Amino acid sequence: MSETFPTFKDIQEAHQRIKPFIHETPVLSSRSMNKILDLDIVFKCENFQKVGAFKFRGATNAVRKLSKKDAERGVTTHSSGNHAAALSLAARQLGIPAYIVMPETAPDIKKKAVAGYGAEITFCKPTLQAREDTLSIVQKETGATFIHPYDNYDVICGQGTAAIEFLKDIDDIDVLIAPIGGGGLMSGTAISAKAINRKIQVYGAEPLNADDAYRSFKQDVLIPAGPPNTLADGLLTSLSPLTFQIIKEKVDDILTAKEQAIIDAMRMIWERMKIIVEPSSAVPLASVLENRHLFKSKKIGIIISGGNVDLTNLPF
Amino acid sequence: MSETFPTFKDIQEAHQRIKPFIHETPVLSSRSMNKILDLDIVFKCENFQKVGAFKFRGATNAVRKLSKKDAERGVTTHSSGNHAAALSLAARQLGIPAYIVMPETAPDIKKKAVAGYGAEITFCKPTLQAREDTLSIVQKETGATFIHPYDNYDVICGQGTAAIEFLKDIDDIDVLIAPIGGGGLMSGTAISAKAINRKIQVYGAEPLNADDAYRSFKQDVLIPAGPPNTLADGLLTSLSPLTFQIIKEKVDDILTAKEQAIIDAMRMIWERMKIIVEPSSAVPLASVLENRHLFKSKKIGIIISGGNVDLTNLPF
Repeated sequence: MSETFPTFKDIQEAHQRIKPFIHETPVLSSRSMNKILDLDIVFKCENFQKVGAFKFRGATNAVRKLSKKDAERGVTTHSSGNHAAALSLAARQLGIPAYIVMPETAPDIKKKAVAGYGAEITFCKPTLQAREDTLSIVQKETGATFIHPYDNYDVICGQGTAAIEFLKDIDDIDVLIAPIGGGGLMSGTAISAKAINRKIQVYGAEPLNADDAYRSFKQDVLIPAGPPNTLADGLLTSLSPLTFQIIKEKVDDILTAKEQAIIDAMRMIWERMKIIVEPSSAVPLASVLENRHLFKSKKIGIIISGGNVDLTNLPF
Repeated sequence: MSETFPTFKDIQEAHQRIKPFIHETPVLSSRSMNKILDLDIVFKCENFQKVGAFKFRGATNAVRKLSKKDAERGVTTHSSGNHAAALSLAARQLGIPAYIVMPETAPDIKKKAVAGYGAEITFCKPTLQAREDTLSIVQKETGATFIHPYDNYDVICGQGTAAIEFLKDIDDIDVLIAPIGGGGLMSGTAISAKAINRKIQVYGAEPLNADDAYRSFKQDVLIPAGPPNTLADGLLTSLSPLTFQIIKEKVDDILTAKEQAIIDAMRMIWERMKIIVEPSSAVPLASVLENRHLFKSKKIGIIISGGNVDLTNLPF
């Protein structure tokens, strides 16, 4: 057991810390879906979390762990997705500033969401270099603390709290599956699950078209994400050395899903469960459907990561 | 008080009768939505009911109240909507046949849903006359009992059970709103609400483009629905003498909403609450937004009637 990454005790402490500020999201299942699929699946619905995604857990833990002096100077990140919205709201709830660096090409809906949570947005060119350079300028000007979306100890601890609630609500889960993007949710989930019950199989789920974590895991070397080519736009990022280390040690396997399976799974969740989930959240169900032999007679727990979707641009 | 329509006691008995077979659906609210709208709204989510609509309550009560002899010969109705699916599943759960008369022009998705619940479908020409004639033939051939979607005492009692659960969960509701189509849900809701707390204001909500109940209510004479011209395709039907009588006696007022307000309300529920609701279910929220002056500092309860939507044909 390594000492260099978060322990279950850290995650339990994070849970106590953030509990007053997050939603304890519901666990849902659909009898009709389970009957059609001949499977037994329960879903932890982080699409009902504040800002519509699990990211609010990690962001809240990270801002609440800052020293008073650091907190006063605010927090910053570069992101156009759920982490930016989560960090903005977490900062506002604490009464500190958030500075978000965003590519000028980000969709209007995302710019509005982040601005709506009271963050100060700095736009940059849509390259990683421009993002990092702009972030560095913002940090120098403001003294704000950079909160990385997943390569951050406190963020990982926050994300791991969803699994604590899930396994408290449903105590006979055999297999727990979460989507893998940068690996923050996956890392926290695996640490919690294995500590609560080491017999639980913990799987990551990844789009086949963005299978860098799968290949890293199989080849035992961190392979960066290639150019994005999946609908699951929350899962484009590469693992970090920290999340890769945790995933290697704690995750049993990584499964992949083809694009059509992701679309079909997303539609099935919308139609049968009447809940809105983003494409990234459908990847675990899609990976189950593409690897059915692994799940016979197992109770399957899936973490629905979020529900932020552009309703004018759906894949069906 | 008239003796000719269902009493609260009838609805309470219906609730005990159907409880083992229905879902007790959740009550949800969205802090972000309430903040944006500066309102205090809670939603009883019958989109999570079996078959995705409140109709399963009334259908279950109706089939469970049949005599053994009548039940054995099965049930029948003409419908292409949620009532057909609800009656089919309610009959299957009881182990009796359901015969559904459906226009041959009904969407494939609805034909499949009803067939999937094990009903025997008889197709007819898409006119009311053809529906009624075909139903009459089916009744003669099978001896099945006709379960009308709303002009039926037991169906109304079943629909009234949603309000009992709602007002048990949230005991400080000032205004309760349900959509009005044929008036079954509205009738049952109003009887329950006024019996539980006669200070609760009970409103019906109707599309302005299908405002036959509104006009009937205001002119005190039953006006049939005109040609359909609204997205809220669950609310096209006319009141029956029975539901009109109940609504006149128990409902405080009927509000209407324009089509664009219905679309906006539906989108707001999808985006903010991450739940899928059908257009008819968005009509109460739309009517609140078009009549804001009525709702200042009130706790508003809205019954979400269902979540069955064709995802390939959305209004946004």
